[in-house]
Amino acid sequence: MSQTRVHNFALSLDGFATGEPQSLEAPFGHAGHRLHEWFFATRQFSADGAHGIDDAFAQRWAPGIGAEIMGANKFGPPGWQDDLGWRGWWGERPPFGTPVFVLTHRPRPPLELDGTTFHFLSASPDEVLAAARDAGGGLDVRIGGGPSVVRDFLLADLIDHLHVVQVPILLGRGVRLWDGLEGLEERFAVEATTSPSGVTHLVFNRKVHGG
Amino acid sequence: MSQTRVHNFALSLDGFATGEPQSLEAPFGHAGHRLHEWFFATRQFSADGAHGIDDAFAQRWAPGIGAEIMGANKFGPPGWQDDLGWRGWWGERPPFGTPVFVLTHRPRPPLELDGTTFHFLSASPDEVLAAARDAGGGLDVRIGGGPSVVRDFLLADLIDHLHVVQVPILLGRGVRLWDGLEGLEERFAVEATTSPSGVTHLVFNRKVHGG
Ligand SMILES: NC(=O)c1ccc[n+]([C@@H]2O[C@H](COP(=O)([O-])OP(=O)(O)OC[C@H]3O[C@@H](n4cnc5c(N)ncnc54)[C@H](OP(=O)(O)O)[C@@H]3O)[C@@H](O)[C@H]2O)c1
Ligand SMILES: NC(=O)c1ccc[n+]([C@@H]2O[C@H](COP(=O)([O-])OP(=O)(O)OC[C@H]3O[C@@H](n4cnc5c(N)ncnc54)[C@H](OP(=O)(O)O)[C@@H]3O)[C@@H](O)[C@H]2O)c1
Repeated sequence: MSQTRVHNFALSLDGFATGEPQSLEAPFGHAGHRLHEWFFATRQFSADGAHGIDDAFAQRWAPGIGAEIMGANKFGPPGWQDDLGWRGWWGERPPFGTPVFVLTHRPRPPLELDGTTFHFLSASPDEVLAAARDAGGGLDVRIGGGPSVVRDFLLADLIDHLHVVQVPILLGRGVRLWDGLEGLEERFAVEATTSPSGVTHLVFNRKVHGG
Repeated sequence: MSQTRVHNFALSLDGFATGEPQSLEAPFGHAGHRLHEWFFATRQFSADGAHGIDDAFAQRWAPGIGAEIMGANKFGPPGWQDDLGWRGWWGERPPFGTPVFVLTHRPRPPLELDGTTFHFLSASPDEVLAAARDAGGGLDVRIGGGPSVVRDFLLADLIDHLHVVQVPILLGRGVRLWDGLEGLEERFAVEATTSPSGVTHLVFNRKVHGG
């Protein structure tokens, strides 16, 4: 059965998944790289990286995934829709290697880059999930972020597995993940694990019979 | 050297230290007892309770403390200032056993109950801390909450040690602790430890040379 999964989703202690303002020079605003230092130290990110609990979680990003869904603000900085030459942050060899569905109110034709095809569409979470499952051959679908899109999918009760990495910093401002999700834990089994790196891994696994 | 400490301060994953609305029937609003179930299971709370990591943290509440400072909304439900008979939530034998300084814009005469003396005053964090240190014979001072008062003391850089217990629930509404505290981690060493009970203990220890 195809699952809907979120991986390596980094949050500050005060719940922000990105700082502000988002820009070409600073995709995470004033957060800089601070939400992802734990990831840069993993083997998943680089051949020099370490195996360990952070890496064990990070490695789960790709296996079993047939497609990703992301929001417009993950695909590019504010205003990218006005630049027909914008091809995403990832250069000519994006790491996805699957179809990627970019939710945007200003769709454009698909873009193929080295085994990753970006599809741009305006659709409800249900609709885009059906399209992504189809394109991914029935494998699992990753919801890649940003926080607004992950939140929309949680609100629609469309997430089976959520992996959040809580980084011990306070950003103070940016975009929050948890807003409007009162009682989320009733639908999930929650497990927390700390890492020697200082981050805490939180996994939410959807309860089989709802709650 | 007298330290300023916060202990057993419970937060939901989305950062709320209490639900809403606060009332005589529901001191934590819609949060009910959910922020403190980990505590009720400890030996510190009851002779039937368990020893373990939650208890080890909980036990640190009293030793070395000479006085507590708390906010008006911890001392009583909204409107308690209009009731001259209100003597706090704790009955005739409050657990403090030290002077307690209650910050309120509507002071009243001191109240003595079985070894705990409540003093009511309107004063800045600096001023009340000096008074509490003095009354506590130079021992450590506990900042007992609620979140507004803990936040004020963090903003004034008057906290040496902060122990937060993150409970894996999403309250969605209430009073947040972390607002306005961007960059707090620069002044503290932060350590996270998970417990079999499901909560995560976060300790902030102030760096000796600032930072
Ligand atoms: N912490 C992490 O691990 C992590 C992970 C991924 C991303 N991020 C960061 O998160 C930030 C982006 O997050 P965000 O919350 O600002 O935005 P986002 O979730 O990436 O995108 C939201 C935008 O997507 C479009 N959209 C969403 N749903 C749609 C729908 N149903 N139909 C059509 N369009 C739809 C809308 O854009 P338009 O109306 O403009 O088309 C909306 O404003 C970036 O800074 C990124 O770097 C962080
Ligand atoms: N999660 C936990 O572990 C924990 C711990 C303790 C308490 N709580 C809960 O937290 C809630 C209360 O927190 P809260 O943030 O609403 O309020 P609070 O911090 O208890 O009290 C804030 C109030 O104290 C008075 N005050 C604060 N600073 C003052 C000053 N410098 N001078 C004079 N008065 C001052 C003001 O009241 P007035 O203007 O009305 O006088 C202010 O509105 C309660 O629900 C309580 O049960 C939770």
